[in-house]
Formats: sequence, structure tokens, C-alpha cells
Amino acid sequence: MSNQEFVVLGQDDAAGGCCPELLTTPLDEGQAVELAKVFKALGDPVRLRLLSMIASRAGGEVCVCDLTPAFELSQPTISHHLKLLRQAGLIDCERRGTWVYYWLVPEMTDRLAAILTRPAGEPLPDRTAPAGATS
Amino acid sequence: MSNQEFVVLGQDDAAGGCCPELLTTPLDEGQAVELAKVFKALGDPVRLRLLSMIASRAGGEVCVCDLTPAFELSQPTISHHLKLLRQAGLIDCERRGTWVYYWLVPEMTDRLAAILTRPAGEPLPDRTAPAGATS
Repeated sequence: MSNQEFVVLGQDDAAGGCCPELLTTPLDEGQAVELAKVFKALGDPVRLRLLSMIASRAGGEVCVCDLTPAFELSQPTISHHLKLLRQAGLIDCERRGTWVYYWLVPEMTDRLAAILTRPAGEPLPDRTAPAGATS
Repeated sequence: MSNQEFVVLGQDDAAGGCCPELLTTPLDEGQAVELAKVFKALGDPVRLRLLSMIASRAGGEVCVCDLTPAFELSQPTISHHLKLLRQAGLIDCERRGTWVYYWLVPEMTDRLAAILTRPAGEPLPDRTAPAGATS
């Protein structure tokens, strides 16, 4: 497949970095919309398990025929979840004959990891939330 | 508030590590359900912007009164989004008089970053998706 559906995260970042700054600079609305699509794709247990099965597979790719039996879900449902992961840029695929083979796009998980990583050397705050606080 | 609502990610991990292994070992169903809740909380542009505003604030905490004006949303809607971030363990809060103050829980973003980080030294695959592949 082409990369046209892929979400581009921060490649036009003004700072010239690889990623929007989530933890150090407030995201603008456009960055938040794009990034939320990727996290939303991860926000489902079936998709997380699919991603994990694909990413952890020795050899780096998995036939859809090996993914489906792990779930009590129909093939079209699995395919739908895989499509959402693919549209988020987290996996890619190739059809070979009858079956489609999937692999992780590690550049995307690398970007998410970078986005969620605090600046080097920043200590954890020493906080104890007092009782009675509420939202 | 108490920590009772917090999602615990992988603290009982059999490997003794801090986090479930997303990229190297298939997640089990329970891990996937817990982790999906956190990613789902991040899968919304308003919540991502709120988290980013809170995380990047000098001094480490933000009054809800400083968050609301950045959005064309009602105070109850903002409070609802903040509640979802808090229930996911991404932020915490304390009421002081009229206002509630929020701060990042960096342990949670650290965990997510670790979960999304590939094992050290693993090279990026040299892949070129062929034309015509499809899901």
C-alpha cells in the first residue's frame, strides 16, 4: 500500500525535531488532532493485542491467517481493526496470494515514545496528593 | 484524590519490569484492556491539548481557571475531559479553595514511553512496501 493514509506527526515541526512537543510545549490544535488519531487507534484492547502480536513476531511480519485464531472475532472485524492501525501509520501490509502479511512501522512507535519522553534530567516531582482533593 | 482510580500498568509483570511488553511479547488480554484505557484517554484532541498544557506548565501545575479559556468548550466539558485523564492516571489534582489545580503524573507518561520503546540496538527494518499491496 502507499503511505498516503499515514498520519504525519510533526514532520513540519517548527523546531525541526521529529515530533510535536507534548510534555514541554502546549500542542496546537492541528498537532493534537493528528496525534489523537494515533492514540485513538491504540485505545482498543483488540488493536493493542494485534499490534503487540505483529511487533513481537520473530521475522518481523505476520500473516493475517495467524492473527485471527487468537481472537473470538470474525475475520472482517479483525481486518477492520488492522485497517485502523494501518491508517494510523502503526503497521503496514502486503498481499501475497491469498493472504495479507502485516508488520510494525517502528518509526511511528519511536515517534510516540519520543513524544512521551520527558526532557533528559528532569526529576520526578515529590508530590503527595492530599486527601479530599477532587476535580 | 486517592490513587484508587489509577490504572496500574504491569506492576505485576511476570518479567519483573515496570511495564507490559508491547513490542516484544504479545500482550495478554488483561494487560491490553488496562493499557487501552490509557491510550483511549489520549485519543482525543482536547484531552491531548489539556495534558500538554498541564505538562508543559512552568511550576508544574495549572489552575483549571487557566485551562478553560483556551477552549471554546464549557467548564463542565473541560472538567469531564480532565476527569478522564485523571482516571487514566495521567494527571492528578488538588482542590484549593474555589479552584482545582492539575499536574502531570510523569510516572505514567514514563511507562507509556517505555512500553513504546523498542529494545536497544534493534535496527529499523529496510522495507519498501510494494505497489498493489492491500489489506
